[in-house]
Amino acid sequence: MSKKLTSRAEDYSKWYNELVVKADLAENSAVRGCMVIKPYGYAIWEKMQAELDKMFKETGHQNAYFPLFVPKSLFEAEEKNAEGFAKECAIVTHYRLQADPDKPGKLRVDPEAKLEEELIVRPTSEAIIWNTYRNWIQSYRDLPILINQWANVVRWEMRTRLFLRTAEFLWQEGHTAHQNKAEAMAEARLMNNVYATFAENFMAIPVVQGVKTESERFAGADETFCIEALMQDGKALQAGTSHFLGQNFAKAFDVKFANKEGKQDYVWATSWGVSTRLMGALIMTHSDDNGLVLPPSLAPNQVVIVPIYKSDEEFDAVSEVAKSIQTDLRAKGITVKFDDRDTQRPGAKFAQHELQGVPLRIAIGPKDLQNGTVELARRDTLTKEVVALDDLTNTVENLLKEIQDTLFKKALDFRDSHITEVNSFEEFKDVLEKKTGFISAHWDGTNETEEKIKELTKATIRCIPLKMKEEAGVCVYSGQSSKGRVLFAKAY
Amino acid sequence: MSKKLTSRAEDYSKWYNELVVKADLAENSAVRGCMVIKPYGYAIWEKMQAELDKMFKETGHQNAYFPLFVPKSLFEAEEKNAEGFAKECAIVTHYRLQADPDKPGKLRVDPEAKLEEELIVRPTSEAIIWNTYRNWIQSYRDLPILINQWANVVRWEMRTRLFLRTAEFLWQEGHTAHQNKAEAMAEARLMNNVYATFAENFMAIPVVQGVKTESERFAGADETFCIEALMQDGKALQAGTSHFLGQNFAKAFDVKFANKEGKQDYVWATSWGVSTRLMGALIMTHSDDNGLVLPPSLAPNQVVIVPIYKSDEEFDAVSEVAKSIQTDLRAKGITVKFDDRDTQRPGAKFAQHELQGVPLRIAIGPKDLQNGTVELARRDTLTKEVVALDDLTNTVENLLKEIQDTLFKKALDFRDSHITEVNSFEEFKDVLEKKTGFISAHWDGTNETEEKIKELTKATIRCIPLKMKEEAGVCVYSGQSSKGRVLFAKAY
Ligand SMILES: [Zn+2]
Ligand SMILES: [Zn+2]
Repeated sequence: MSKKLTSRAEDYSKWYNELVVKADLAENSAVRGCMVIKPYGYAIWEKMQAELDKMFKETGHQNAYFPLFVPKSLFEAEEKNAEGFAKECAIVTHYRLQADPDKPGKLRVDPEAKLEEELIVRPTSEAIIWNTYRNWIQSYRDLPILINQWANVVRWEMRTRLFLRTAEFLWQEGHTAHQNKAEAMAEARLMNNVYATFAENFMAIPVVQGVKTESERFAGADETFCIEALMQDGKALQAGTSHFLGQNFAKAFDVKFANKEGKQDYVWATSWGVSTRLMGALIMTHSDDNGLVLPPSLAPNQVVIVPIYKSDEEFDAVSEVAKSIQTDLRAKGITVKFDDRDTQRPGAKFAQHELQGVPLRIAIGPKDLQNGTVELARRDTLTKEVVALDDLTNTVENLLKEIQDTLFKKALDFRDSHITEVNSFEEFKDVLEKKTGFISAHWDGTNETEEKIKELTKATIRCIPLKMKEEAGVCVYSGQSSKGRVLFAKAY
Repeated sequence: MSKKLTSRAEDYSKWYNELVVKADLAENSAVRGCMVIKPYGYAIWEKMQAELDKMFKETGHQNAYFPLFVPKSLFEAEEKNAEGFAKECAIVTHYRLQADPDKPGKLRVDPEAKLEEELIVRPTSEAIIWNTYRNWIQSYRDLPILINQWANVVRWEMRTRLFLRTAEFLWQEGHTAHQNKAEAMAEARLMNNVYATFAENFMAIPVVQGVKTESERFAGADETFCIEALMQDGKALQAGTSHFLGQNFAKAFDVKFANKEGKQDYVWATSWGVSTRLMGALIMTHSDDNGLVLPPSLAPNQVVIVPIYKSDEEFDAVSEVAKSIQTDLRAKGITVKFDDRDTQRPGAKFAQHELQGVPLRIAIGPKDLQNGTVELARRDTLTKEVVALDDLTNTVENLLKEIQDTLFKKALDFRDSHITEVNSFEEFKDVLEKKTGFISAHWDGTNETEEKIKELTKATIRCIPLKMKEEAGVCVYSGQSSKGRVLFAKAY
């Protein structure tokens, strides 16, 4: 626990991997590519879940639960979607083990217990859900259907990294059904706005909202809205997506409804999701060489109180004040841990809470009791000050708000200073390699150019920003005409 | 929606299946044995989750998340556990699909993408968790570990029924690690108590706490504590279990720790769980021939307000009062739906809310406005009364408490009047067939007798009650001596 992290400057990727494990967020498991989310990491995920769930319900959505498995015949029904996920899915072929006749005490797959039809472990649930919606929808009166599901999904990725890309991950997936295109499109935009609000106001992560190019779209979508964040190493991270699915799934699963005029029409769809990948975005937006930095809204413990003492008498006296501070802060809805472990020295506690990103640390010793003070340390700025015990609750409340704001502003400044307009391909490559970040450049709108730029630079079009200003120009690569700038970056 | 349910007397099993579907709780899916939990059913499950989660956290537990898959070599490590689940598990053998060369547009399993080691979809997570705990535990300072997980599990049951027995189900599984036997045993008992409190106080379902006989124990446990409920058809339902696992998993996964004396010892374990099966218990404890009956603590809407009107003017006048009632009730933390749909007549709304078990219904029409009254209908007793608008908030608050109590008392009376002491095997069979319910009888303590009775009557020993009174007697089947009565029943 006490060994120092590799610094970001030294090896950013190693810094990230070490931080995730040392801050007790997650670790690799015995199953290739699958992670164990440890209690501290899971507690942060629970905070995200609670806030998102509230936002979904406030926008009229309900939760439900659909099966983990998708029969192969349903999986392949929407061809583009199937094509997009076929190469990375876990497939259940048997339903029983038996004693292995060759190896006493060991089991083997029972060859007699082969499924007639293979089951795909869901990589996403459009197929199973739209097959279900068919029976729920007869008329426009049954619409809209506004459902969300909290679930695990599996994508058999070959190169995995904790939180960022794992074979199994946790997520929510919204699946909605509508009677016309405009309503479905409005839903897809609404949920992308919900994600942007959540990322910025709750996670303190500034995001660019945009739409994906055709090649980066969700398999089966007609339009993919996204929120894109910028990590400290200058790489982008797609933090959430919201898809307008047109009538593609309705056609694949024959989901029709009688519209207000009594005519049969295919239903319009959206789907939208964010995942435990957000944990990666959180870590890489705010953390530093000392470890995790948490916005107060996501911190399982917003404040930790560490007692400083030599004797039992001192401990008792300090504890009494600590507990009364804890009570006062809790009354304000602030989460506070009193770290009274006698197995650790204060220095070790300081290091642990710093590593784990607790926003505010209060230390109290015998001198503080005499002076009516405490020592208050901010995790984000690493500054300490001695403050009066008197007005501590207000001080803490205000500081937590300030930390939340400061983290957002700092991330926003970084992001804004790393959006660079370039007007030539030389400049493009230069900025990408030296300055990094988002590159705002004209693009001719073709797949070919996008593909070529990716091949040459590893940068992809992260999005066509919703707030793109109309500006006539020429494509940075092909010289063809362009109507506006899009954002390129290397990405996670 | 309006078609009447089959009555319980006519066909109890059909009544149950129809109720689950018509009340919009769940339905079968395209995947054999897997269910879709619909929004209304899921909202009830969310209430259970929230309360249980609070109770787990109050008793010192934290949530975490472990992989969906268990590699076969880990699955088979604890032999009894493996034996118990081997015959009903879904097995992932491949990780990729490819275009089927014989069928254009279809996919097939890519034979090249066979896993080196098969993965079992978790039927329970002891194996993957204890394999992880090995790395977390070095010394007694690392203990106890008190972790819970909310997850989906898969058991390939051949005969399935919505909520009661499904191939995939949702549950929570607690997995704790301790430094000695007494502490682990105390944890197993504590969590069984938590389950009993939850069932009785929150779900209004009376339960008997007991321990399972060896043959009914969880595979891999040294002792299984349980809570047993009695359904209206006189069959028992195991509503939750808490296992003392001894050192079985620690030995299978080599999880040792340095105890306070510095000696290496195997870690002691418990696990405990409840599942979406509780939805079945809920339905079969309280519901009637008109549909679902919900205890107020579990009702997504505790109160529904139905406006009665002929003209737009009447609707406006009634709505104004309805909304002010809604506001007042919500201020008291009561969940209220104002059912102002203009696509349904009041009669259809009444029928729907009755079918879906909303505890209290308020109807308001123009006459009520004149008289300063509303009509209040109780779902549990199906009684109606006209009450003053004046004190409505208090009336509703008190009635909700009363309904919760009444449902529990009614279920308790039924349960208590269906525990029958018998002293001969003739009587045993007679009561089992005619009166049904729990049979309290002496048993000689052997597997053989238990097995024989099961063969002859289909009744099993539900539990040896924790509150069993010591009473010398002779076994109802074998005539051998017995130290006390155990509870037999036919069971779900
Ligand atoms: Zn820079
Ligand atoms: Zn009876």
